[in-house]
Amino acid sequence: MTSFTVAVRIVPRRGLLDPQGKAVADALHSLDFAGVQDVRVGRYIVVSLRADNAEAAEADVRRMCEQLLANPVTEDFELENARPLAAGATS
Amino acid sequence: MTSFTVAVRIVPRRGLLDPQGKAVADALHSLDFAGVQDVRVGRYIVVSLRADNAEAAEADVRRMCEQLLANPVTEDFELENARPLAAGATS
Repeated sequence: MTSFTVAVRIVPRRGLLDPQGKAVADALHSLDFAGVQDVRVGRYIVVSLRADNAEAAEADVRRMCEQLLANPVTEDFELENARPLAAGATS
Repeated sequence: MTSFTVAVRIVPRRGLLDPQGKAVADALHSLDFAGVQDVRVGRYIVVSLRADNAEAAEADVRRMCEQLLANPVTEDFELENARPLAAGATS
């Protein structure tokens, strides 16, 4: 078993209202960032886990997204490639 | 002026306590993902904006991070490369 980190980008599904993104866009306009057209606020989750290989690590994290991390109704998620974690560095 | 999207990954600074990540890790253990060692929960923000070119778009978003999007005390941020937005697609 090797340690890997797999990062996940979770974003509100395109076309759905994103009130938090709207609030951030309004705040940016107040700060004179006039060029801002749209903001979407999602989550970026980095999971460190033990797995046999990179493919198994990614498959595990995909199941985590489906079961817990992402809301399948309102969010889309995308996995980044698993990276081996340097030995001993778990935090 | 062209429209670009610039995505930002914001994560809790390494070494700082991340209670939300700890809660997610505990929940994953309860779901029998025994290999999970650590979880860090950050934000993934996608900004669509008008700018003269990709470099200007990235510079703008970097300033947004410094002024509003990221907490300089507790968080690190990383910009992804600006991508031109297809004409007319702003949502």
